[in-house]
Amino acid sequence: MHNYFKMSRRKTIAIDMDGVIADTVAQFIIWYEREFGERIEKEAFHGVPESEGLPNGAVRKFVYMPGFFRTIPVMEGAKEAVLELTKNFDVYIVSAAVEFPQSLAEKYEWLQENFPFISWKNIIFCGDKSIIGTDYMIDDHVKNLDGYSGNCILFTAGHNMGIERHTRINTWKEVIELFNKELEHA
Amino acid sequence: MHNYFKMSRRKTIAIDMDGVIADTVAQFIIWYEREFGERIEKEAFHGVPESEGLPNGAVRKFVYMPGFFRTIPVMEGAKEAVLELTKNFDVYIVSAAVEFPQSLAEKYEWLQENFPFISWKNIIFCGDKSIIGTDYMIDDHVKNLDGYSGNCILFTAGHNMGIERHTRINTWKEVIELFNKELEHA
Repeated sequence: MHNYFKMSRRKTIAIDMDGVIADTVAQFIIWYEREFGERIEKEAFHGVPESEGLPNGAVRKFVYMPGFFRTIPVMEGAKEAVLELTKNFDVYIVSAAVEFPQSLAEKYEWLQENFPFISWKNIIFCGDKSIIGTDYMIDDHVKNLDGYSGNCILFTAGHNMGIERHTRINTWKEVIELFNKELEHA
Repeated sequence: MHNYFKMSRRKTIAIDMDGVIADTVAQFIIWYEREFGERIEKEAFHGVPESEGLPNGAVRKFVYMPGFFRTIPVMEGAKEAVLELTKNFDVYIVSAAVEFPQSLAEKYEWLQENFPFISWKNIIFCGDKSIIGTDYMIDDHVKNLDGYSGNCILFTAGHNMGIERHTRINTWKEVIELFNKELEHA
């Protein structure tokens, strides 16, 4: 019997949307090919700020276009893994979406469609994530993790390659493995 | 010289929107009179859940109608007081708006119009406020304060009369007086 049955309260996890449960880079590539007729490889996003992953300033253009956030593909394995996490943790979806206010309703609808088991009570749209008081945060942006006071988990993305100051995970399978270990040691 | 100049970091305050910086009851009364031709007194909201302040289920109807949140009057004294607080504190506007996703863009625009000095980085739209990790929270709903781990300040509203378990303030003038005392004792 695992110790975690003794825990006085369920621990809380804040999970980012873009680049973590939403495959935003895949969407950038789809939209770029549709508009410019050219297939960009995902390696174009490696080692550069996300906004520089596409030519023609297309990243900054697409994120303000209706429908962009509403139709992003789900990150591979994210749906099953987040559902699995909800069995032992209180899971919150935390997106720095207030920078793009037109995206707020789209992001809410996207969550309802793809993660219907996440209650509206567990959705947070914010700017600065430093005041999020969860036990864990899974995010691809170091700017979000650096100001956060809990346990940081960096989800690998092209723009965060080479960063070594946070626990890194590469896939949702690895997330589950990591939290299974956390439960064993709780 | 006050001690607060020695503080290592600025303290953080989460401030609610509806019933705190937005005079939602005033808006309910305006919309009710416009639709039903009858002037309801604000005392109708005293001692009852907010949803029962108006006849005909009008409260639950109005909060889903386009324009309702966009045009709420600013609470008396809120603008000047929040601006004053930003001099010594990091102020976050935290609204449990995800329950009404159609309101998200309206609330953002309302803040831009009425509180232009609040950056998008300091706006949070959430459901459950229990994971907000600020030092203080000013809210009119005890359900938001009860699960919160910081210092609670209950802003008086009809639906919270008689509640004695949180520090109560009645006006924005009292908020400033309270935080001036906090600064003196810091």
